[in-house]
Amino acid sequence: MSLNMSIWLVIFLHIYSVLASDSDPVQDFCIPRSEFSSIFVSCKNSSLVTVEDFVFSGIKSPGEFSKSGFSSIPVSVSVFPGLNTLGMSFVRADFEPGSINVPHYHPRATETAFVLEGKIYSGFVDSRNRVFAKVIEKGEVMVFPKGLIHFQMNIGDSRATILGSFNSQNPGLLKIPSAVFGSEIEEEVLIKAFGLNNKELAKLKKKFLPIS
Amino acid sequence: MSLNMSIWLVIFLHIYSVLASDSDPVQDFCIPRSEFSSIFVSCKNSSLVTVEDFVFSGIKSPGEFSKSGFSSIPVSVSVFPGLNTLGMSFVRADFEPGSINVPHYHPRATETAFVLEGKIYSGFVDSRNRVFAKVIEKGEVMVFPKGLIHFQMNIGDSRATILGSFNSQNPGLLKIPSAVFGSEIEEEVLIKAFGLNNKELAKLKKKFLPIS
Amino acid sequence: MSLNMSIWLVIFLHIYSVLASDSDPVQDFCIPRSEFSSIFVSCKNSSLVTVEDFVFSGIKSPGEFSKSGFSSIPVSVSVFPGLNTLGMSFVRADFEPGSINVPHYHPRATETAFVLEGKIYSGFVDSRNRVFAKVIEKGEVMVFPKGLIHFQMNIGDSRATILGSFNSQNPGLLKIPSAVFGSEIEEEVLIKAFGLNNKELAKLKKKFLPIS
Amino acid sequence: MSLNMSIWLVIFLHIYSVLASDSDPVQDFCIPRSEFSSIFVSCKNSSLVTVEDFVFSGIKSPGEFSKSGFSSIPVSVSVFPGLNTLGMSFVRADFEPGSINVPHYHPRATETAFVLEGKIYSGFVDSRNRVFAKVIEKGEVMVFPKGLIHFQMNIGDSRATILGSFNSQNPGLLKIPSAVFGSEIEEEVLIKAFGLNNKELAKLKKKFLPIS
Amino acid sequence: MSLNMSIWLVIFLHIYSVLASDSDPVQDFCIPRSEFSSIFVSCKNSSLVTVEDFVFSGIKSPGEFSKSGFSSIPVSVSVFPGLNTLGMSFVRADFEPGSINVPHYHPRATETAFVLEGKIYSGFVDSRNRVFAKVIEKGEVMVFPKGLIHFQMNIGDSRATILGSFNSQNPGLLKIPSAVFGSEIEEEVLIKAFGLNNKELAKLKKKFLPIS
Amino acid sequence: MSLNMSIWLVIFLHIYSVLASDSDPVQDFCIPRSEFSSIFVSCKNSSLVTVEDFVFSGIKSPGEFSKSGFSSIPVSVSVFPGLNTLGMSFVRADFEPGSINVPHYHPRATETAFVLEGKIYSGFVDSRNRVFAKVIEKGEVMVFPKGLIHFQMNIGDSRATILGSFNSQNPGLLKIPSAVFGSEIEEEVLIKAFGLNNKELAKLKKKFLPIS
Repeated sequence: MSLNMSIWLVIFLHIYSVLASDSDPVQDFCIPRSEFSSIFVSCKNSSLVTVEDFVFSGIKSPGEFSKSGFSSIPVSVSVFPGLNTLGMSFVRADFEPGSINVPHYHPRATETAFVLEGKIYSGFVDSRNRVFAKVIEKGEVMVFPKGLIHFQMNIGDSRATILGSFNSQNPGLLKIPSAVFGSEIEEEVLIKAFGLNNKELAKLKKKFLPIS
Repeated sequence: MSLNMSIWLVIFLHIYSVLASDSDPVQDFCIPRSEFSSIFVSCKNSSLVTVEDFVFSGIKSPGEFSKSGFSSIPVSVSVFPGLNTLGMSFVRADFEPGSINVPHYHPRATETAFVLEGKIYSGFVDSRNRVFAKVIEKGEVMVFPKGLIHFQMNIGDSRATILGSFNSQNPGLLKIPSAVFGSEIEEEVLIKAFGLNNKELAKLKKKFLPIS
Repeated sequence: MSLNMSIWLVIFLHIYSVLASDSDPVQDFCIPRSEFSSIFVSCKNSSLVTVEDFVFSGIKSPGEFSKSGFSSIPVSVSVFPGLNTLGMSFVRADFEPGSINVPHYHPRATETAFVLEGKIYSGFVDSRNRVFAKVIEKGEVMVFPKGLIHFQMNIGDSRATILGSFNSQNPGLLKIPSAVFGSEIEEEVLIKAFGLNNKELAKLKKKFLPIS
Repeated sequence: MSLNMSIWLVIFLHIYSVLASDSDPVQDFCIPRSEFSSIFVSCKNSSLVTVEDFVFSGIKSPGEFSKSGFSSIPVSVSVFPGLNTLGMSFVRADFEPGSINVPHYHPRATETAFVLEGKIYSGFVDSRNRVFAKVIEKGEVMVFPKGLIHFQMNIGDSRATILGSFNSQNPGLLKIPSAVFGSEIEEEVLIKAFGLNNKELAKLKKKFLPIS
Repeated sequence: MSLNMSIWLVIFLHIYSVLASDSDPVQDFCIPRSEFSSIFVSCKNSSLVTVEDFVFSGIKSPGEFSKSGFSSIPVSVSVFPGLNTLGMSFVRADFEPGSINVPHYHPRATETAFVLEGKIYSGFVDSRNRVFAKVIEKGEVMVFPKGLIHFQMNIGDSRATILGSFNSQNPGLLKIPSAVFGSEIEEEVLIKAFGLNNKELAKLKKKFLPIS
Repeated sequence: MSLNMSIWLVIFLHIYSVLASDSDPVQDFCIPRSEFSSIFVSCKNSSLVTVEDFVFSGIKSPGEFSKSGFSSIPVSVSVFPGLNTLGMSFVRADFEPGSINVPHYHPRATETAFVLEGKIYSGFVDSRNRVFAKVIEKGEVMVFPKGLIHFQMNIGDSRATILGSFNSQNPGLLKIPSAVFGSEIEEEVLIKAFGLNNKELAKLKKKFLPIS
């Protein structure tokens, strides 16, 4: 393959980060071609598809824990291509005692959270700022309506684990603390919005320094 | 309340078996009024809604097992009203060793099946009659694309359990053996479709006598 | 064109088996480029589009009949590209006297079936295994709700013909007998699901040997 | 039933002219309660549903012909309740030789038109004002993309008939001549839009006097 | 009307706070009956509908300003019933010099914001915490993708005004500061999520005391 | 780059005129690669995306006026790529005194029209040919339901301006006069549909000669 050819290939691959959307599928399934990144619009020839494309084995154990004792493995179409065009994805979250999943939301999905292990204080805020929260235990399920802010905290003595399921192949995730204080929103906006002074804001932001 | 009133009430309740649909919600949530049946179009006044409306505790243990050793608890909006308008539901299925979940499909949803316990031979058939099947174990997930026939069998030595999640609040369920041989499809159609004689069909149908 | 170029072209074409989906169109129409296969994501330049792209002439006569006397010509976007992105397709089915359209379903569409000629016993099974069936005649229409199993049998003395319309550009088709007994579902699953012994299953499967 | 009761009943029925929408169904079907009008949101108790709810027999023969020799029977959910929530409907149109179906469009559906009998000049206009038209004959199908203006004329020597299918349970219909010249659009708008003088407009409007 | 009747009426009205959803309409329009609250599923008899139902005159002037100098008038289906089932709504926002629209998001809609007057620093945060922000002026338009956090600040010397349009009839609104610090999220969750101590949290919360 | 390469590139670019659809997005946003035309299915690498992609500055002033005194600048995804996959677009329309926006419709969107300046007689026709029209003024908003014919006329003494917003990224536009009389619809169809004679039709058509 010539040099030009290779350049062209790079361009081509680059393009395919693509749109797919959570509407009804029009095929049985569409396994993206593995050469290409994230979300795909082109399907593997179906004779090359195998059962492995429909099975995901990466959440048997917890992911890497943060210093605060929280771990999550989001499984959207970018890591489990079999989900492509099918409008679903999921996540495994593990909590050391006392650790939290910070207030966050998924802009493109409702979530049903099933407690695999432990006791979790779990809740969400609706658009009237009302909180619906309680402790849920192994085997219980809580639903977080589409786009609403929710949070969890392990209030038990041992590790807790949750399996969350979403009705989008790519639900998205916005963590409130880092989206607000770890991003480059103009400081004056934050000072006015939260009633902070410069020093208080600086202290808050320090915790969420963007990764450089 | 007068007699006429009561009759009217009956008529009224009767009406509310109603349409809702898996499109985007237009409220944060819509807890159906509890007086009415199955699927609802009218929401409880939001000040009457509590966190209990969003938590489901009925799948901590297996349901009742069939003689063949299979149990399932489908959790759609009719038993967990908090799901209303949110486009999700789920199911817990338990398998004694060797027992199966017969070939079936959900006409209105994709399913992601997470193995809570055990070893399950699990697969589906696509519209070219190709089977994608393999043994999946605790912590693994398999996706069954929308509307395709799938099946499971506990091939381990102990009880196995699966949590299935759906992207519809009412996915529906058609079990192939009973839909075909346990329903009142004209016998001549079945005889011709499956290449059976009268006696063979009678024997097959005996197993799936409709509940009288 | 160089050899490398050709290889590249092959790869490229191969990719385009692609996702489209039955949501609202965002153009007047999108005739797929004819070089590419089945379902397309890229539209012909509109100046190359002609009225021929919007007319289909392939169902004036029946298709080839099976030995059992049934013929069908499904017309989805892969043979009538004008349907692309428009969310509709159709099928012509012809029946010799006594012949059947085996129990089957379309995972992605509702069907309205119009009788062009003859008398057809026609019905479907709902998710409570209840059968809704009757004889319909020339000029009558029956609706088969999305994803439900349905079947037909010519009970008249002459050939019967049906025009089916779908609200998906690629509704899919699963024929129950061949999907279940003509596929490679593990035999133990079928034995248990249908209450068969090995010999009975073998006999049933013989009729549906997968095409090799 | 008391007088008050009756008033109440009237109010109640009045309400139910209702919204339903062409998204995915969440039940197998939803036959509207027959007491209520047009489009429904509440389903008959499924034990009261019979096969008659899913069969329509009203288009075996042409409807009443207009003076100009055209007849159409639109079959949406208001006359065939079985279509409710299923996202489909259809129409039978008959043409005496030389008669036309005036330029019109359906704001909420794509249409596939199958020629049951005769030779029909048939076409549509896209949003660049380009016309795609040709003569189609018995057994041919033309697709009219969602929302585009289309028209038909019987150019044969005998009666012609078309079966149109739609992917909405209530596609809507706007006939251009009567919507523009038979409605009460301010005359100055029409004079300027079509470059007419007062007398020319008056003549045009006379043909489309609103029914009083 | 008897007492019982009245009670019944109250119950009935109460029910109708209802689900509608942003899918395709199935009628030309559906003006909700005015007796009922917020979002409706039942349409006024179309003969009672007038042009006033489709015109909204309530955003000719700014709404009431907050102490901080911000005012907004959200116009969803609950105040402009003509929007019902049509999937759109809008908002007028006015800013005194230096005032802000705090970081917020709409869980169910994309927004296009048109500057009617003034100079506005305007931006949003994506799900990688990247900020896209700049000053926009009279006649410019910025798009805020569905569900992402956005904010605005009048950086000019005179009042600024924005017209925002949404592609949902009820987009929802979550203001980050009050949803997080003005709601009853368990304090331990906030302390851990934002790295605050008790005193800092108390100070932050004081600004957002829920309205009692 | 070799000759073959260039040809290939041309082919490739040509393909990308593509389908996208107004369903839910599955990413935060998807800025199309700028090399390609109109509507896109492939997204720019997100690190190349800047705030400029989300801001549109092209409607600060009116567009070019027609001889009749009307000007419009439609802003769909083809000129404002930031709208891609987000399901919205907009238009600026300016009217000299007495000038009109001819009866037209958008096949794929509802429109909310906000009066920026002036007094506009504004209305639409429903599918029963009923007109809903009135004069709206600066700061008022009128909604035109999806797919219905609407029109406007400046009845004030000075220039009038409207901002229209749509819930589709590519709503489409069919102007009735030019679609009907400026297109190549068979003349006999128009003569019969509008009750014209040859001479009257010829006069009408002269005004709308297709651009050659």
